[in-house]
Amino acid sequence: MDSIHDRLASVGLQLPDEPLTPGGSYVPFVWSGNQLLIAGQICRVGEEVQFTGVVGEDVTVEEGQAAARLCALNSLAVAGAACGGDYSRLRLLSLSGFIRCVPDFGQQAKVMDGASEVFIQALGDNGKHVRTAVGVYALPRQAPVEISTIFEVVNNND
Amino acid sequence: MDSIHDRLASVGLQLPDEPLTPGGSYVPFVWSGNQLLIAGQICRVGEEVQFTGVVGEDVTVEEGQAAARLCALNSLAVAGAACGGDYSRLRLLSLSGFIRCVPDFGQQAKVMDGASEVFIQALGDNGKHVRTAVGVYALPRQAPVEISTIFEVVNNND
Amino acid sequence: MDSIHDRLASVGLQLPDEPLTPGGSYVPFVWSGNQLLIAGQICRVGEEVQFTGVVGEDVTVEEGQAAARLCALNSLAVAGAACGGDYSRLRLLSLSGFIRCVPDFGQQAKVMDGASEVFIQALGDNGKHVRTAVGVYALPRQAPVEISTIFEVVNNND
Repeated sequence: MDSIHDRLASVGLQLPDEPLTPGGSYVPFVWSGNQLLIAGQICRVGEEVQFTGVVGEDVTVEEGQAAARLCALNSLAVAGAACGGDYSRLRLLSLSGFIRCVPDFGQQAKVMDGASEVFIQALGDNGKHVRTAVGVYALPRQAPVEISTIFEVVNNND
Repeated sequence: MDSIHDRLASVGLQLPDEPLTPGGSYVPFVWSGNQLLIAGQICRVGEEVQFTGVVGEDVTVEEGQAAARLCALNSLAVAGAACGGDYSRLRLLSLSGFIRCVPDFGQQAKVMDGASEVFIQALGDNGKHVRTAVGVYALPRQAPVEISTIFEVVNNND
Repeated sequence: MDSIHDRLASVGLQLPDEPLTPGGSYVPFVWSGNQLLIAGQICRVGEEVQFTGVVGEDVTVEEGQAAARLCALNSLAVAGAACGGDYSRLRLLSLSGFIRCVPDFGQQAKVMDGASEVFIQALGDNGKHVRTAVGVYALPRQAPVEISTIFEVVNNND
């Protein structure tokens, strides 16, 4: 199988050079048995939040999807670092997606597909996950999208 | 013990004929050990979202509770399908509830009791769960309520 | 090591005398293997919600942090009761924080640090956790902050 980097590059995406540092008094990941919990990730590139604003107002659905893709790439980078770069062991369990939007916006699923499809592209069958998507009023640093993920680490020799 | 269907029927409720299909690029459930994670469920009957609107504005508390009941029934149907219809093995661990409401609405607990009481009616002691309920600005397809659940599957021979 | 009570007292904090009772049809905690899931906690002291209102409007960032500290203390009290008062066995895995705020408020992380720092003060290295913080439109009983936590219970003899 191609590396995660090749698989992402084939759709024009790449992981950040290194996992982003947390924006507060918490850690980027914790282990609980073989579950790997990842801190919430917004659509930052380095310290810069991309696509700031409100989906349905000054952020389009397509831009929201691009923001969701960045959240997914940032989550993957943290998860990869947590398991020493061996992405083939990662299985995504769940994705909670928060979309800052106008009150009558009902296409949260379409926006969040931006993130979901990155995980499936990157991890194949191991990227298939459950998801909850809601529309929120405000997000850290005016980000339009934030996601929270839980992975499981599988043993390649199973 | 009566079947889950009898227990629900005794309070005028019934499970959907089949689990709803996901509204995006995700799967309805995943397993992690004996934990069973269920995708977020809104108050759909088939493809039709019920009680669309905002609790405290055009949706009453009672309608919000009815919407929450539908979310619970939809979650149960997915969980039941995941364990081959053997509902007696399901134990609900947690329920996260999102209620689309006006900003000064403070009765999220009362609305969400609609869902919680379905799980307790359906599963008895195995339906007792922790819960977090918040008020959100927007939900997929103008739904007033969405819930996310995590179950554990217990071995009947324990 | 000092007791959790001494460690909290050294920064002017104390646990509630007893865990708060749930505000609806749910239980305060459930076990799943060695994971301990805690119900959402708002900034109640007994039955009284503190600092009611909206962060960025009638609640300051500093008051939001104080509210977050109360949520953390309430969560710890439930977790402690769940393991018979042996706080040394508790390890916090994750914190989901919901802040009721104005739409252009972007300092959710700063508010939620109020809660995170209580857990680190109380539990030391066992208090280091992942976190997701979002801004919501409404919370139960007009609370400005609500948190949801998952702990793991570790065996002291490991």
